[in-house]
Amino acid sequence: MSQPAFDTRAFRQALGTFTTGVTIITTRDQDGAPVGITANSFNSVSMSPPLVLWSLAKSAYSLPAFENGEHWNVHVLTLEQEALSNRFASRGEDKFAGLRLDQGVSSAPLLSDCAARFQCRTVFVHDGGDHLIFVGEVLDFDRNDRPPLVFQAGQYALSTLKPSETPRLSEPPADAQSSYTEDLLGYLLGRAHFQLLHQLRIKEPESALDHRLFYVLSVLLIREAPSLDELNDFLAYTDRPLAAAELVEPCRLGYLEVDEAGETPRYRLTARGREIAQGRIAAAKRVEQEIIDQLGEADARALRLLLKRLIHNSDPGYPDLWHREAPLASPEARS
Amino acid sequence: MSQPAFDTRAFRQALGTFTTGVTIITTRDQDGAPVGITANSFNSVSMSPPLVLWSLAKSAYSLPAFENGEHWNVHVLTLEQEALSNRFASRGEDKFAGLRLDQGVSSAPLLSDCAARFQCRTVFVHDGGDHLIFVGEVLDFDRNDRPPLVFQAGQYALSTLKPSETPRLSEPPADAQSSYTEDLLGYLLGRAHFQLLHQLRIKEPESALDHRLFYVLSVLLIREAPSLDELNDFLAYTDRPLAAAELVEPCRLGYLEVDEAGETPRYRLTARGREIAQGRIAAAKRVEQEIIDQLGEADARALRLLLKRLIHNSDPGYPDLWHREAPLASPEARS
Repeated sequence: MSQPAFDTRAFRQALGTFTTGVTIITTRDQDGAPVGITANSFNSVSMSPPLVLWSLAKSAYSLPAFENGEHWNVHVLTLEQEALSNRFASRGEDKFAGLRLDQGVSSAPLLSDCAARFQCRTVFVHDGGDHLIFVGEVLDFDRNDRPPLVFQAGQYALSTLKPSETPRLSEPPADAQSSYTEDLLGYLLGRAHFQLLHQLRIKEPESALDHRLFYVLSVLLIREAPSLDELNDFLAYTDRPLAAAELVEPCRLGYLEVDEAGETPRYRLTARGREIAQGRIAAAKRVEQEIIDQLGEADARALRLLLKRLIHNSDPGYPDLWHREAPLASPEARS
Repeated sequence: MSQPAFDTRAFRQALGTFTTGVTIITTRDQDGAPVGITANSFNSVSMSPPLVLWSLAKSAYSLPAFENGEHWNVHVLTLEQEALSNRFASRGEDKFAGLRLDQGVSSAPLLSDCAARFQCRTVFVHDGGDHLIFVGEVLDFDRNDRPPLVFQAGQYALSTLKPSETPRLSEPPADAQSSYTEDLLGYLLGRAHFQLLHQLRIKEPESALDHRLFYVLSVLLIREAPSLDELNDFLAYTDRPLAAAELVEPCRLGYLEVDEAGETPRYRLTARGREIAQGRIAAAKRVEQEIIDQLGEADARALRLLLKRLIHNSDPGYPDLWHREAPLASPEARS
């Protein structure tokens, strides 16, 4: 077998274009101690008999345990199990510390809360260069609906199932020639944003509040007694500066109080204003939770991640509302 | 080997939780005809020597070609190659019709524009139940940066690389206890939406237009001469009904004309109004393209898909702007 002068790093990068799930494979060593490793070389092989395979480096510390132990379990990890994946990817004495093990068909450790589990018995160990290829018969398996963890290009990834047809909000007219289409990101962001606000208004009418007033109250939950200019720094992303006159009504309603002791007036939430703001945030969370339940947790995470990436990319340098350097509302003033 | 009374469908579903990439594997048959199949059973095996593997059903039509042919190429597909994946997944006479083949180290067909390619020579063919496991030495490989196609739960999927730390727009104060956080979807959607509008305003000042007026002009690009009520149907998603008075100024500016022949006034774009609206849409597309370039095409697609899913889930029943049933602006009136 010739050995081309391979750039190993480039080879790994090329292999990394092939996306995989992430598994933990467990067995027991000759002393009965639990052994487990993180592997993404898992794959299905045969339906009848039901066989799966994975490969292990001949140099692996755990090789003897897998060579000698007849039984092993493959656990397909969920996106909640990223920390578990990291734990089993590095050598450590107590990988199994604190983990609940379920009872399986063999003595091989059976981890809980996975996307799928395959309880296997070795049927072949094939040569694979610097690795051994373990082929196992699946004696039992189970699955749940938790979204799986994904690995690509050496990193964890989130995946979003894609319908075979490009999803459309509406059927475009056959003769549509306008450049205004529903694929404009600006349209989609605007519509998603407005619809969320609409849901909030119809589902939680008792917490309805003018959107701009809500932005003001929300900032004041986090920031202690800003001036109008400081308030506007944090509202700059809405692209519509707030005028002092807009704060008269919320003061009259008893949501805000003005501290006029210093050179510039400073605004604070009253107890009533804080209650109103927290109530509205709680209402927003209830409405969002319904939408997240419909999207599924994996898609909701992916959406948040992508929105943050977009916000980061398009941020003209707005100050961080949550940044700890600037004066913050005192902890006892927050619920 | 015992054969548990397996539910094959459930077994497939459990296997489907393990995400994979998608490959096309090619060779030539004894007559020199190109042969290719779609496979997701690919995986890396060994670094030194460089080995990869995949499995093929013993019943596969293409088995003799792969058993007899010494060389085969693995192509990791990009998300642009979904149609190619489908083409090679079903038996067809002319899978290679119209495809450009590159010159490789062997005569095995080498497809172009893939995420990565591995040119291999069989070193082992191992038993794998109803499949054969082909292990190949990688003689040459290459890679490009196109986002790869992903397969999960029997469907194609989009993947989004996930940083190891949860991304944060800002560092939350250690003592933050407010329920108002940057993980609120409503906040993220609002901020992303507003920031996009802000980018548009600063990067394309000559096409700056009041947002609400832009919504009106955009609808009129698609819909022919609506009444105020009909216009409001399509603007309902913005949750702020348009008053007739708001249309006075755009009429005065010469963007709109009012048809008062019927019972209710109907609104139309003037040539000037159409030009303004199209200019603004073109500007929005330029600004979006910069953001899409920064996100990457895969993430931009995933974001659009997720926003559409969210819009679909939270839609209280707004009419479709692009739906063909209602009267549309005449094709010649659109650019």
